[in-house]
Amino acid sequence: MTAATTTRPNMPLAGITVIDLGQIYQGPYATLLMAKAGARVIKIEPREGEPARLRAKVAKAATFPFAMLNSNKLGVTLNLKSPRGIELLKQMVGKADILLENYAPGVMDRLGVGFGVLSAINPRLVYGSGTGYGLDGPDRDNLAMDLTVQAMSGVMSITGFPDGPPLKAGAAFVDFMSGIHLYAGIITALYEREITGKGRLVEVAMQETVYPALASNLSFLYNSKGEVPPRTGNKHGGLAIAPYNVYATSDGHISINIVKEVHWTALLEAMNRPDLKADPRYATNALRCAVMDEVDALVEAWTRKHPRDEIIALLKRHRIPAAPVRDLREVMNDKHMHQRGMLETIDHPELGPIVVPTSPLRYHGADKVKTTPSPSVGQDNDAVYGDWLGLTKTEIQKLKADGVI
Amino acid sequence: MTAATTTRPNMPLAGITVIDLGQIYQGPYATLLMAKAGARVIKIEPREGEPARLRAKVAKAATFPFAMLNSNKLGVTLNLKSPRGIELLKQMVGKADILLENYAPGVMDRLGVGFGVLSAINPRLVYGSGTGYGLDGPDRDNLAMDLTVQAMSGVMSITGFPDGPPLKAGAAFVDFMSGIHLYAGIITALYEREITGKGRLVEVAMQETVYPALASNLSFLYNSKGEVPPRTGNKHGGLAIAPYNVYATSDGHISINIVKEVHWTALLEAMNRPDLKADPRYATNALRCAVMDEVDALVEAWTRKHPRDEIIALLKRHRIPAAPVRDLREVMNDKHMHQRGMLETIDHPELGPIVVPTSPLRYHGADKVKTTPSPSVGQDNDAVYGDWLGLTKTEIQKLKADGVI
Repeated sequence: MTAATTTRPNMPLAGITVIDLGQIYQGPYATLLMAKAGARVIKIEPREGEPARLRAKVAKAATFPFAMLNSNKLGVTLNLKSPRGIELLKQMVGKADILLENYAPGVMDRLGVGFGVLSAINPRLVYGSGTGYGLDGPDRDNLAMDLTVQAMSGVMSITGFPDGPPLKAGAAFVDFMSGIHLYAGIITALYEREITGKGRLVEVAMQETVYPALASNLSFLYNSKGEVPPRTGNKHGGLAIAPYNVYATSDGHISINIVKEVHWTALLEAMNRPDLKADPRYATNALRCAVMDEVDALVEAWTRKHPRDEIIALLKRHRIPAAPVRDLREVMNDKHMHQRGMLETIDHPELGPIVVPTSPLRYHGADKVKTTPSPSVGQDNDAVYGDWLGLTKTEIQKLKADGVI
Repeated sequence: MTAATTTRPNMPLAGITVIDLGQIYQGPYATLLMAKAGARVIKIEPREGEPARLRAKVAKAATFPFAMLNSNKLGVTLNLKSPRGIELLKQMVGKADILLENYAPGVMDRLGVGFGVLSAINPRLVYGSGTGYGLDGPDRDNLAMDLTVQAMSGVMSITGFPDGPPLKAGAAFVDFMSGIHLYAGIITALYEREITGKGRLVEVAMQETVYPALASNLSFLYNSKGEVPPRTGNKHGGLAIAPYNVYATSDGHISINIVKEVHWTALLEAMNRPDLKADPRYATNALRCAVMDEVDALVEAWTRKHPRDEIIALLKRHRIPAAPVRDLREVMNDKHMHQRGMLETIDHPELGPIVVPTSPLRYHGADKVKTTPSPSVGQDNDAVYGDWLGLTKTEIQKLKADGVI
């Protein structure tokens, strides 16, 4: 090992510098995970701040998601509509390993900093592009947000009850699915660069990250020879498992998913209905699927009589896959996730004491990246443009005066 | 460059070998993306096949998800309950770069092939563990499936209408969110290995991959000082954008998300209601949020009168973020995704002509990995145990006869 590697911090992405043009959720989530793995992430915002900050006009709390997703980043401002701003971006790219952006297709090219230009400046650059529908194809220019892609990608058509309207998933899954895919594609190209010496353009389209997750429901479509699957409420998307549902208890809801026959007999024990083990109508999952509503009614008649947490404790003792339907306050205060360090309470300069996530990517044996709160607008201009890029104080002052940073 | 690198196939993960113990969705999705990036993935199944195949007892179509997620993998059988099976696994690990498993916590240790043992055999091994709640903490041993983690993680509590029950997201988002996180963590450690020469244990817990996607809804919780956010149906999770909803048309539904003021004035143009531009009640997003139901009613009164695709075309001309709520048949036959190569129609030996996904991770300039259908059980036993691991035909025959493979 060389001296350089022996002094390397014990974090997977130590030494990597990321130019982060990400906005809202998709891009910022990807670069949060890079920062949490030890990379230096330079978050570039327009002088008025990135769009996720601007929602604060509706409510101060609207900056809460910004605080969740931008820990451990350096915050700088840069006006990409000024020629000097573009020059500075190019200069930074020359010293960086990764550039990430989730603008609409074509925006970076129009600014004169598309992949071709930046790759000529730094052939080792890994360039990550996150868009709604991709960089080519007939739907390329469709505007994309989590809500619209949930509609377009089929998720809404299979969420909700058969007799109700289509529904979105409550969480912004599409934004985050595509954010983590973007992270994954970029780091794959970073690995490849270590072998080949060359970076790549990596592209992720929001819509495409959703398709594989439709697997259960698509199997229904295949089986029905093209008949469109119904929404199934809380039942299995392929109507192929029973019991599989959400059941009301005396004070809330629980979900149960009977994956194996051994779970079914255990459930009958828990329900104190061992007599039903011999019932031929319920003998296999396939048979139970044929009388799914009857099976669900049987289970719920029992769950309704008991409190949520009592049933969950009982089902746990019987090793049956089940969980309480928890509300967000319970989730944010989850002992398990706090104990594991996935959630942390920090004192945020703008928002006060808040709970923020660290990273679901856990590298055993690596040093922990200590959480620093999300930056204020332009907080690290002097450090980045001065100490890192080498501009003088006078130059930096002029850039500020000229509206470039 | 050395001779070895000049002859390297032009694919990011060329030369990487993956021992794939993945099952159902989480693990297999991660290794699908590795295979599609050029890695050699050896899918190890018990002699009766992995659980995703067994659902075929309910309906033949239940193997459709298996076919979607296991293209481009070599299929071998291995009995991990036999000492000789464990020996073979160790032997394979000695020649591999990555091992991935999504068993319950502790299973691999009990089999005698936990990270400590395998890492001693091959210190360069990257070991990826996917679980429901992680390898430690009080909830470690909770049984986890997509449905139960949707309940536990808070997703259900915010999906559905305020006056209805909690609902799951129709797609198996938790399985796939955690699958792509597992991919991401493993490849990050693979990158690090190129620098340090050492592999790592990488851990991903399903529940933890969901938390960041709750950002909008958690902001509501923060703002309300602890009051639990209501389900918001198809409205914005933080009730901070209007119009933002799903609207009925004369023949289906559409979603609209008015992100910027310019979209609002464009929408009024499209609706032929330019008179409302001067209405002070609707002048800003914050004001519109205050009368959200009224604004939604105004929009839907208009959408109800026109067919879905006609409105979408009109909104597109006005550059307004909107999308049709498409059903799964439309999605599976999506021209755009087929044209881009995200979806392909293949002739599957068991299922006939089916549509399968390739990879949402697109590496510009790389060679395309030609799709081969998911393997049958043990299809590649001879190739893997013979050609790759170096066992003789006689040895392989004995392993089969002894129930080891």
